[in-house]
Amino acid sequence: MSNTAKPLVGVVMGSSSDWDVMQNAVAMLKDFGVAFEARVVSAHRMADDMFEYAATARERGLRAIIAGAGGAAHLPGMIAAKTIVPVFGVPVPSRYLRGEDSLLSIVQMPKGVPVATFAIGEAGAANAALHAIATLATTDDALAAALEAFRAKQTEAARAMTLPV
Amino acid sequence: MSNTAKPLVGVVMGSSSDWDVMQNAVAMLKDFGVAFEARVVSAHRMADDMFEYAATARERGLRAIIAGAGGAAHLPGMIAAKTIVPVFGVPVPSRYLRGEDSLLSIVQMPKGVPVATFAIGEAGAANAALHAIATLATTDDALAAALEAFRAKQTEAARAMTLPV
Amino acid sequence: MSNTAKPLVGVVMGSSSDWDVMQNAVAMLKDFGVAFEARVVSAHRMADDMFEYAATARERGLRAIIAGAGGAAHLPGMIAAKTIVPVFGVPVPSRYLRGEDSLLSIVQMPKGVPVATFAIGEAGAANAALHAIATLATTDDALAAALEAFRAKQTEAARAMTLPV
Amino acid sequence: MSNTAKPLVGVVMGSSSDWDVMQNAVAMLKDFGVAFEARVVSAHRMADDMFEYAATARERGLRAIIAGAGGAAHLPGMIAAKTIVPVFGVPVPSRYLRGEDSLLSIVQMPKGVPVATFAIGEAGAANAALHAIATLATTDDALAAALEAFRAKQTEAARAMTLPV
Amino acid sequence: MSNTAKPLVGVVMGSSSDWDVMQNAVAMLKDFGVAFEARVVSAHRMADDMFEYAATARERGLRAIIAGAGGAAHLPGMIAAKTIVPVFGVPVPSRYLRGEDSLLSIVQMPKGVPVATFAIGEAGAANAALHAIATLATTDDALAAALEAFRAKQTEAARAMTLPV
Amino acid sequence: MSNTAKPLVGVVMGSSSDWDVMQNAVAMLKDFGVAFEARVVSAHRMADDMFEYAATARERGLRAIIAGAGGAAHLPGMIAAKTIVPVFGVPVPSRYLRGEDSLLSIVQMPKGVPVATFAIGEAGAANAALHAIATLATTDDALAAALEAFRAKQTEAARAMTLPV
Amino acid sequence: MSNTAKPLVGVVMGSSSDWDVMQNAVAMLKDFGVAFEARVVSAHRMADDMFEYAATARERGLRAIIAGAGGAAHLPGMIAAKTIVPVFGVPVPSRYLRGEDSLLSIVQMPKGVPVATFAIGEAGAANAALHAIATLATTDDALAAALEAFRAKQTEAARAMTLPV
Amino acid sequence: MSNTAKPLVGVVMGSSSDWDVMQNAVAMLKDFGVAFEARVVSAHRMADDMFEYAATARERGLRAIIAGAGGAAHLPGMIAAKTIVPVFGVPVPSRYLRGEDSLLSIVQMPKGVPVATFAIGEAGAANAALHAIATLATTDDALAAALEAFRAKQTEAARAMTLPV
Repeated sequence: MSNTAKPLVGVVMGSSSDWDVMQNAVAMLKDFGVAFEARVVSAHRMADDMFEYAATARERGLRAIIAGAGGAAHLPGMIAAKTIVPVFGVPVPSRYLRGEDSLLSIVQMPKGVPVATFAIGEAGAANAALHAIATLATTDDALAAALEAFRAKQTEAARAMTLPV
Repeated sequence: MSNTAKPLVGVVMGSSSDWDVMQNAVAMLKDFGVAFEARVVSAHRMADDMFEYAATARERGLRAIIAGAGGAAHLPGMIAAKTIVPVFGVPVPSRYLRGEDSLLSIVQMPKGVPVATFAIGEAGAANAALHAIATLATTDDALAAALEAFRAKQTEAARAMTLPV
Repeated sequence: MSNTAKPLVGVVMGSSSDWDVMQNAVAMLKDFGVAFEARVVSAHRMADDMFEYAATARERGLRAIIAGAGGAAHLPGMIAAKTIVPVFGVPVPSRYLRGEDSLLSIVQMPKGVPVATFAIGEAGAANAALHAIATLATTDDALAAALEAFRAKQTEAARAMTLPV
Repeated sequence: MSNTAKPLVGVVMGSSSDWDVMQNAVAMLKDFGVAFEARVVSAHRMADDMFEYAATARERGLRAIIAGAGGAAHLPGMIAAKTIVPVFGVPVPSRYLRGEDSLLSIVQMPKGVPVATFAIGEAGAANAALHAIATLATTDDALAAALEAFRAKQTEAARAMTLPV
Repeated sequence: MSNTAKPLVGVVMGSSSDWDVMQNAVAMLKDFGVAFEARVVSAHRMADDMFEYAATARERGLRAIIAGAGGAAHLPGMIAAKTIVPVFGVPVPSRYLRGEDSLLSIVQMPKGVPVATFAIGEAGAANAALHAIATLATTDDALAAALEAFRAKQTEAARAMTLPV
Repeated sequence: MSNTAKPLVGVVMGSSSDWDVMQNAVAMLKDFGVAFEARVVSAHRMADDMFEYAATARERGLRAIIAGAGGAAHLPGMIAAKTIVPVFGVPVPSRYLRGEDSLLSIVQMPKGVPVATFAIGEAGAANAALHAIATLATTDDALAAALEAFRAKQTEAARAMTLPV
Repeated sequence: MSNTAKPLVGVVMGSSSDWDVMQNAVAMLKDFGVAFEARVVSAHRMADDMFEYAATARERGLRAIIAGAGGAAHLPGMIAAKTIVPVFGVPVPSRYLRGEDSLLSIVQMPKGVPVATFAIGEAGAANAALHAIATLATTDDALAAALEAFRAKQTEAARAMTLPV
Repeated sequence: MSNTAKPLVGVVMGSSSDWDVMQNAVAMLKDFGVAFEARVVSAHRMADDMFEYAATARERGLRAIIAGAGGAAHLPGMIAAKTIVPVFGVPVPSRYLRGEDSLLSIVQMPKGVPVATFAIGEAGAANAALHAIATLATTDDALAAALEAFRAKQTEAARAMTLPV
């Protein structure tokens, strides 16, 4: 479940039911041609796998981990506890509290173990990927150029929007 | 950091700064003469210790684990992920959100890995201990009698309250 | 409305309309073969029955009471006021506030009368049952083994999840 | 703990610590010369007393019950479950959630058992009393006149307010 | 828009779109045979009518006014400002905030001008009527008996609920 | 309570206790030399005065009304219901809910009767005045110049801020 | 995308997807015959265009700018930072938080740079336009008369509402 | 206001009053010897400076920008709109809403322009710096080693915590 090159970004989520949201991160990585891997790693049901995943992330060459989770969303924070690879948290909307619980569970990390947090849902998943890409772009001029191009295109698309006035 | 008998209840918290709240659990256990141990186990700064603590809890004879944490409060849920010993979560008030984040991070666990959650702060810590005691009392008549006595005394104290009307 | 053995766990709810949520607790108890009873006990419309239910719970052999209620959810707390049998509260989602009112009405109990609270809705109902089972398992090795097996199976199911990357 | 005439209004609260807030109800009743009684009745620690209090309220001549409680504030709703005497609920501010939990626990009663709810804290306590007085005044012209006078005086006081411009 | 007897209870709402919720109050009054009137009185679009309505309520014989409104729900509070007839506020659910705004706008009245507030939506509308009926019943034994009968029937209905266990 | 010129802006508040917040509006108007009047007008205790105030605002020459209120903050909306003079609402912080109730009570006005709402507390009061000034400045070049100068000065002050790095 | 006269009011929004909400502002301006322009100006994707738009607003004759945005809704505040033309902010409902984020992002502006904020969604959009019209009406008697007529018609429509009692 | 080496990280905040919180970011950068600059850049009062700061960030060699702001916290998002350098947002606690507004204004960015968000207040400021350091460490082995050492030391400090049991 990764593209062919050695993955630079890991995308993990607590359940396959998070895919609807998290595919927005994957799609963005694909668009930029950033090598990634994507898999289910549940903090609560696969705790040892999660620790193994986090503990080996750096040696496996990952430079960013995007983790999506909902409700008592412990996955991003617990991965961050086990690696110095930067972790990007995506609050997946929950059934009754619509992701307010997910957001607070992810963003309110204590001093010492950071998780970079993004918006609830699809936009947050896409932006976590964009931020990871921007991070990689700080030392990769080609990627930086691609990111500038993405921004420019995005600006043009917004400029082209018309209203049925 | 435990009374002399083999502990039945473990009390853990993410930081020594949680003691002001969590001592209410310890005091209750002491009042009922329930053997306990109490220590700092940080989910984010001592992740391996936490897993070790949880994984060995049952074989060490623990029959309840009371875990207090604040903010992105992952300690109770992650301990619950690593043991079938019942976990009792106490939301410690956070600086800016007064424990609303702690409460949601603890109570909103996904199906399959439960954490029994109590009120934010001091009352919750005392009640987590009382609930653990009530659990033990289901198979310990002497403890059940002590709990009944505690309740009766509590009722008398409430009945004795007067108002300066 | 119980399986044949003498019930160890009572499942109560404020209305038959809570069944959609609360059946998740019953299903879990059935899966583990834990003898239970399930009935409607409304705190506000059947206050005397509720008190009778709670007051006789211990002598009838109940070792856990799972109580689900929505809105101004008084059922779990009032049952807890009348028995030392451990009470497990399930916040049933309410129509307009989606269970935020239910959650606070259940979890914010005052010092002295605890209610162990679980997540809003289906996950909370299932987890209340799992926690009750875990409590029973502290003195029942067969049940403990079943719980370990449940966890292992759950882990395998999560590990088997694939993503359409 | 009542003035000499046979009480028309009962003022109850879950703890003597609620007095700071609830005395605002008592003061208002005194100002209007409405006979009242005031006492601590804890829903969770004095459940039987509470039911007795509610069940006998009508025969004892009470025409309104003002009940204040904080946190998982079950007192007003449970009294309402046991009497048709109108119940007026006052959300007492809680330590960490400032009465948001108290408010929702009191106001979100299910169809069939109403509790008239007022503002969080001191204003709510005073207003619960004023509302009870207004209720009595619907069949008591002298009290109605006193209420009109109170309102007029209140208007004059507001009109007399000046600003240091 | 009233039944034939001289109305004792006025039911007002800010818009005909509030009828879905507020008809629950009207249905309850009809069930108890309490004479009422029901009409649209908008605080913001019919301010003068509203003041007129409130100012003449007492002389027209109204003994309770049930007012439903949503969003910045000023109707109950402004009617209360213009009459000593007891006002019962019903928070009508709003489109985006589901009645949280309506609830706070109604319940948080300042000291001196009370509005008795009920649950958001249908249950609140029904309960506002029940509370008004209970108020009338304090001086009307036949109505009190009817209310007791309603309660008893409600209890029986709850007792008759079965679960598909 | 106004400066000598015929007032263009009215500043009203529900109580003299709102002055601490609302003086920030007055100070701003003074700084810009905009003629104003300031007084207490309570929606709930001085309803008739409020309507009179609003109904005569336009003929008295007011071109903006700044209204501050807390809790169930009906003052801005009810003034807006009685005049087409633009109303600027300031949510005054409430004791327990810190102005969240005030904000929602003011901003969530129904379609047809607008209230322009500003931030909770001091900043909101100052900004309501600045917005009123900006409104006047659309047809007053001198005032526009003063506003531009205020902005420029404000920018310089921000630029001059240093940090103790 | 404007009517033929030189626009007095600019209507901007962050995306064409905001049109469903923002067309309520445009419709109101059309009804009153107020010359306007409407276009997409994204704060985050068209930052330079936004600054240009704001910086030239006054010289282009705009006397009000209505800006709608959702989520981290920066458009109204950033336009306000670049012009002294009064800015009217409309919180567009967001997918998961229903506009609570939009509301706070718009209304909580710091002292010195005001944004007049209106209700979340359609009502807010319509009211922002009405407030802008009211502002123009302070120096335009014909428009004032039209606004009075609109109000009167609105009152008649409310008065004509009937209920199916 | 920077240490001597060419800054890799820019730390900006909306006001010098944000320093109490934001100095936690600066202290962390100093501890790790990461070259930084720190200054006040107000989104609303220094909009042009802000755009200039952001637009030149990449060419000046910045590889991360940490931006703190409170209330309607537009600074992080608007900087992100003008640069592809990764932006790290810190919600500074606001006076009345304690940073809930700041958090939502920062984290809820739309798809396409990400801001990595951290906890409200001091912890968030420190963690934003730690995350920036972790980002730099992905291509700097010495910094990675320092980060690992920091983590190890932090673990030891937590392990050394004792409780006064």
